[in-house]
Amino acid sequence: MTITTFDIIELLKNHEWISGQQIAEELTISRTAVWKHIQQLRKKGYQITAKPNLGYHLEETPQMLTIEEIKHDLDTTFIGQQIRHIDSVSSTNDYAKDLAKKGEPEGSIIIANEQKQGRGRKQRFWASPKGGLWFSIILRPHLLPSDAMQITMCAACAMIESIHHNTNLHPSIKWPNDVLINNKKVCGILTEISAELDGINYLVVGIGLNVNNKLPEELTDISTSLQKEANQLVNMTAILKNFLTSFERLYLAVKKGNISLIQKTWMDYSSTIGSNVKIITEKEIVKGTAIDLGSHGELIVRTDQGKKTIITGDISYL
Amino acid sequence: MTITTFDIIELLKNHEWISGQQIAEELTISRTAVWKHIQQLRKKGYQITAKPNLGYHLEETPQMLTIEEIKHDLDTTFIGQQIRHIDSVSSTNDYAKDLAKKGEPEGSIIIANEQKQGRGRKQRFWASPKGGLWFSIILRPHLLPSDAMQITMCAACAMIESIHHNTNLHPSIKWPNDVLINNKKVCGILTEISAELDGINYLVVGIGLNVNNKLPEELTDISTSLQKEANQLVNMTAILKNFLTSFERLYLAVKKGNISLIQKTWMDYSSTIGSNVKIITEKEIVKGTAIDLGSHGELIVRTDQGKKTIITGDISYL
Repeated sequence: MTITTFDIIELLKNHEWISGQQIAEELTISRTAVWKHIQQLRKKGYQITAKPNLGYHLEETPQMLTIEEIKHDLDTTFIGQQIRHIDSVSSTNDYAKDLAKKGEPEGSIIIANEQKQGRGRKQRFWASPKGGLWFSIILRPHLLPSDAMQITMCAACAMIESIHHNTNLHPSIKWPNDVLINNKKVCGILTEISAELDGINYLVVGIGLNVNNKLPEELTDISTSLQKEANQLVNMTAILKNFLTSFERLYLAVKKGNISLIQKTWMDYSSTIGSNVKIITEKEIVKGTAIDLGSHGELIVRTDQGKKTIITGDISYL
Repeated sequence: MTITTFDIIELLKNHEWISGQQIAEELTISRTAVWKHIQQLRKKGYQITAKPNLGYHLEETPQMLTIEEIKHDLDTTFIGQQIRHIDSVSSTNDYAKDLAKKGEPEGSIIIANEQKQGRGRKQRFWASPKGGLWFSIILRPHLLPSDAMQITMCAACAMIESIHHNTNLHPSIKWPNDVLINNKKVCGILTEISAELDGINYLVVGIGLNVNNKLPEELTDISTSLQKEANQLVNMTAILKNFLTSFERLYLAVKKGNISLIQKTWMDYSSTIGSNVKIITEKEIVKGTAIDLGSHGELIVRTDQGKKTIITGDISYL
């Protein structure tokens, strides 16, 4: 979409009614050009009414994501300032990694209406039909590979803040970085890195959030969507924009080395610390009480055999 | 090269002289086929004499690496059992990463006669003309990203063992993983990983060893080659084969979690521990005495202000 189409949306949003003549004058384009742009916007899902003597009125913005809606008043300096929006993709993370390899700048995001082969941690399938929020962020932090967990934590915290802000729901984080509502998973995060031992080349944070999409029937016991929990259609654009703003703030803190802020925020939002848990790792099954987080995001569990530090595993609450 | 060509080399190596007739019988091929294979081998650099009544005699194997020579009696179970040999490539690591992404199995190696854009740590240029040993190993260990340093340490130790075995020279390791002879760099190692936070997807260890190649004139103060140090042409194939054997042994120990073996071997081969050092990191310049290695390969330095743990940096000896 051209700058002019974007300008027309701005004018429509800033006026209850605006005439074609006024739009043409403000943007120094012809009346015919105005009419053509209005037609294009309608095709994209903008509901625009036209009345004689009054002009145009914007009834509703599209339900689906559009770059214009995301960028409108987006309150970030670099996260999400470059957006690639694709209808269907195998996986936004794979797409993002290819772009990152070719030099895509820090902060770029890749959004897909659907993923055909969405993945969670450990190559697990993640259903990603239309109606959900599936996107990846490309980052190039000057950090060591072992610090990557901090960035995933930023994403989980930012998602908590955005969901709460937009729906009044009370999500929580389950270690390492699942977002739950009423004990069911609503959002997963998959961070992938390309690195030398000296530092990260690039990092891709992939986020899958069930918004207004249908859930796989076999997973309704353990997963949920914002629509289901809020009992109404949820504005995906607003969720994404608030997320991007929160994420940028937290990510900048990590880049400045303010790890304690992230850890504190994560602890505030987590339902894991203080819970009795069972964790299945590659080597063993650990039962105990989750009591703290290590400096690289490890979970510290008090067990009958003393404290254990868990680096990776699948956790359930007892 | 076909299996039969490989078989002919084996026969030539196991006989002082062997007739064309005998080769034809052993391999159940025609005399004409034998002659054609001999011609092919000569083109590859095998010097084969033919005498009436005696038959064929192998005078000399090629100076350049060939897959046949590397595989001959190679004493490994998986490291280097799959070899890709390319004349010229931008970087063996880049080539290896592309293969790894497509599913190339653990242990595959990629060798190039020359690299056009060889890289060291932190994207630094690494001159890689013909005559040197430039190769990468693809690995798929079930390890966390933070454990990748152990594998680089295996490669440095294996290179020390191979150089010493083949040349009687006394190389040493300079932290993190440069191999020096007489205080000049002879070998660099660049490890790159693709990972999730839960584990490494694949890891590529790239190794550049100056063997019989010319060195860039501007670097003769700080770099050297095996030929220069040993005062003679060095057998690149033998160096590579011994390296692969040592590396497999050490890598299997890491996979089994025997980190202490690697750390001890590294400490034995290192010239850094006990030395007075200056380390330039992103944040500061540290001066002191290197006294130990941390569990993830960090260097521990005693300074006037107490102990410091250095994760990454450029080190020089004082």
